Amino acid sequence: MRNILIIGAGRSATSLIKYLLDKSQSENLFITIGDISLNSAQKFTEGHSNAKGILLDVFNDKQRVEAVQNSDLVISMLPARYHMEVAKDCLKYGKHLVTASYISKEMQSLNAKAKAKELVFMNEIGLDPGIDHMSAMQVIDRIRDKGGKMLLFESFTGGLIAPESDTNLWNYKFTWNPRNVVLAGQGGAAEFIQEGRNKYIPYHRLFRRTEIIHIDGYGKFEVYANRNSLKYRSVYNLKDILTLYRGTIRRVGFSKAWNFFVQLGMTDDSYTIPNSENLTYREYLNLFLPYSPTDTVELKLRHNLKIDQDDLLWEKLLELDIFNGKKLIGIKNATPAQALQQILMEKWTLEEDDKDMIVMYHKFGYELEGKKYQIDSSMVIQGDDQTYTAMAKTVGLPVAIASLKILNKEIKTYGVQLPIRKNIYDPILKELEDYGVHFIEKEGEYLGYNPDNIGT
Amino acid sequence: MRNILIIGAGRSATSLIKYLLDKSQSENLFITIGDISLNSAQKFTEGHSNAKGILLDVFNDKQRVEAVQNSDLVISMLPARYHMEVAKDCLKYGKHLVTASYISKEMQSLNAKAKAKELVFMNEIGLDPGIDHMSAMQVIDRIRDKGGKMLLFESFTGGLIAPESDTNLWNYKFTWNPRNVVLAGQGGAAEFIQEGRNKYIPYHRLFRRTEIIHIDGYGKFEVYANRNSLKYRSVYNLKDILTLYRGTIRRVGFSKAWNFFVQLGMTDDSYTIPNSENLTYREYLNLFLPYSPTDTVELKLRHNLKIDQDDLLWEKLLELDIFNGKKLIGIKNATPAQALQQILMEKWTLEEDDKDMIVMYHKFGYELEGKKYQIDSSMVIQGDDQTYTAMAKTVGLPVAIASLKILNKEIKTYGVQLPIRKNIYDPILKELEDYGVHFIEKEGEYLGYNPDNIGT
Repeated sequence: MRNILIIGAGRSATSLIKYLLDKSQSENLFITIGDISLNSAQKFTEGHSNAKGILLDVFNDKQRVEAVQNSDLVISMLPARYHMEVAKDCLKYGKHLVTASYISKEMQSLNAKAKAKELVFMNEIGLDPGIDHMSAMQVIDRIRDKGGKMLLFESFTGGLIAPESDTNLWNYKFTWNPRNVVLAGQGGAAEFIQEGRNKYIPYHRLFRRTEIIHIDGYGKFEVYANRNSLKYRSVYNLKDILTLYRGTIRRVGFSKAWNFFVQLGMTDDSYTIPNSENLTYREYLNLFLPYSPTDTVELKLRHNLKIDQDDLLWEKLLELDIFNGKKLIGIKNATPAQALQQILMEKWTLEEDDKDMIVMYHKFGYELEGKKYQIDSSMVIQGDDQTYTAMAKTVGLPVAIASLKILNKEIKTYGVQLPIRKNIYDPILKELEDYGVHFIEKEGEYLGYNPDNIGT
Repeated sequence: MRNILIIGAGRSATSLIKYLLDKSQSENLFITIGDISLNSAQKFTEGHSNAKGILLDVFNDKQRVEAVQNSDLVISMLPARYHMEVAKDCLKYGKHLVTASYISKEMQSLNAKAKAKELVFMNEIGLDPGIDHMSAMQVIDRIRDKGGKMLLFESFTGGLIAPESDTNLWNYKFTWNPRNVVLAGQGGAAEFIQEGRNKYIPYHRLFRRTEIIHIDGYGKFEVYANRNSLKYRSVYNLKDILTLYRGTIRRVGFSKAWNFFVQLGMTDDSYTIPNSENLTYREYLNLFLPYSPTDTVELKLRHNLKIDQDDLLWEKLLELDIFNGKKLIGIKNATPAQALQQILMEKWTLEEDDKDMIVMYHKFGYELEGKKYQIDSSMVIQGDDQTYTAMAKTVGLPVAIASLKILNKEIKTYGVQLPIRKNIYDPILKELEDYGVHFIEKEGEYLGYNPDNIGT
């Protein structure tokens, strides 16, 4: 019997848990699920002879150490900042560790010791980071193996609503943590390179500098830049690449409308609004508009943001009921961002039957024997329901597959790892196809941003 | 002989030093000027029998303690963050202290001890803070004394270029620390109240939400909001006031053009630009614009910021030579803000004969016996030359006057103080008039923002 400890039984752990439970007989696994809520931990294990749920507070040393000691491999599905206590225990007691989070400096610092103890500390093996790494590196390595030189790499991911559940004017619902959606893009300028030129976009321009992509069968999407694309130069060894750009996918028109909130200052999370609980939506909106004893909030808004009479954006605002003078924000000491989230949650929360959808799109440009080529690779996956969501599948399944392969010694690259090597990504991507994570490639002429080589 | 120690002999200390030197015989003063540069300290004292310049590094405990011990009153003209070491010495050795800086928490914490030792620690007694406090409180107290109730208080200050030296399209030159000008308004949303309503303006909208003021003989100016107006509710005891707004004064049109830099992200000081020293002005500008192999920087800019063909803003940009493809930024690891400062300094640095100008404008609205009134009070002062600038006069003279009055026991409100009491501001404002700091008042009907009481 091999013992796997899963810490954190939240929404992103469902597919991971199901995968491991389904294999527990054939693979001789015993699964322990630890969560701060015993209920959450046990709801998955009821009736399973090869599994149990336990109460686990990751800050309770005794509970944590005991659970880690009783396992062969630990999966931490906690937020990244909680991993380190677990990682140190894994090191101490000689257990493998798998997370879907970015490698922090602290995590990286355990590399030598983990290697010395022949332990795999696999990270960044969820969706983004995770499937993005694997699917991108598979193509990049293939291009390099045949002697190609990378010219361009663009990579976009979005957590969206499935077409069948796409019922509002924003073409968007909260399929994931709403707070992260409201704060997306904050914290500094987005930085990337296009055709060898550094480019910067400040937060307040981010949602007006979008690009359009197209996916067969799903139509057009738009992309806004992520904060730091450039770190992928070193991670993917793309040192001299001319174009490197990562972004977030939304349905076309979302960003232009979202920019309205950004411009007014409604996504600010740095101060609290006095008496916020008693403000109506309308009064909240009016905080960000000039005072007038006569002019309406509507006209001040149109004038302030130069919204034409026939701009469709207006319908999107009406749909949110943001001009309502009776509905209250209802949260004490709310920041503008928290109040906005409250308003949006009323309209963007999933209905019972709604399904989510994950979209990933990579663009690779390369040169081979004097000619330039382009590969566009895309993946779309929908959720089955609100338990086995597309998000839970794409975050959890790579974690689960990797964990089993580590136990089975199919993955034995020791130390603090991320899945960018062929011997790791190839078998995992292959198995992911069985679960609907399927990339469709199109190869064609290189377009890039300067197809006619003007001025070079 | 009474000994005054002045720490910091920078540009803002000239008028302060002159005032005290001029009075040194009649008032029996000995002035010691301490500066990190002995040269700077001594250039003022040469030939004066009642003064000397000394080398003083405020972080050298021995030097600092000795200088403080030898004085009766210490004036710190250092940046605010350097005051505390001096303040602690003053407390220990029983010396009065005067600064032109905002009272920090640390400074405030010395209040009880300073009081107990019968020491005056007078702060915020420069221009802004300083003359603004005194001139505002003089009017506010007068209104209250006759039974009036304050409805509105607005206060604006600007360091500008004198009309005779106003030779560029921006109507602006650096008469003070250029870095502060480039970073002005950053760090959070501006917060104020208008007719009882809280209002917030995010940084990226700040320069598009200006108001216009008019000063006889000087024409129109524009005002953008300062970050935190609301703290003056407690400082001036304006708890129930309906409108409270503080701002910075510029010539009309400055903010609309400055907004161009804000929108592009050029005032960002949070990251450094690779290879910044070798970038031309044009390449620097292009960092903030989308890539194109064909379109010019000029057209991309016009399109991106929707600048019409005939917008006068364009002339302002041309004047800065910002499209120049040969001139280099020339600073290593420059942030966008530092690079912008470099470009601006080429055009906005004062010529030898240029004079500066300080403009201050207060608006007071009040109700008295059922009627509403308004007082507009403004002050304009120009520099004599580039030594005795308007800035040096308005910052330094109140400090100097207060210092002498403390020594002469005309001011004996002990503890950590700011000049908001009649017994302090009245004599200082009176003496400041002799030096050209003169407020002109206009009294009239209350206008406010809702003169017809609509909807109230």
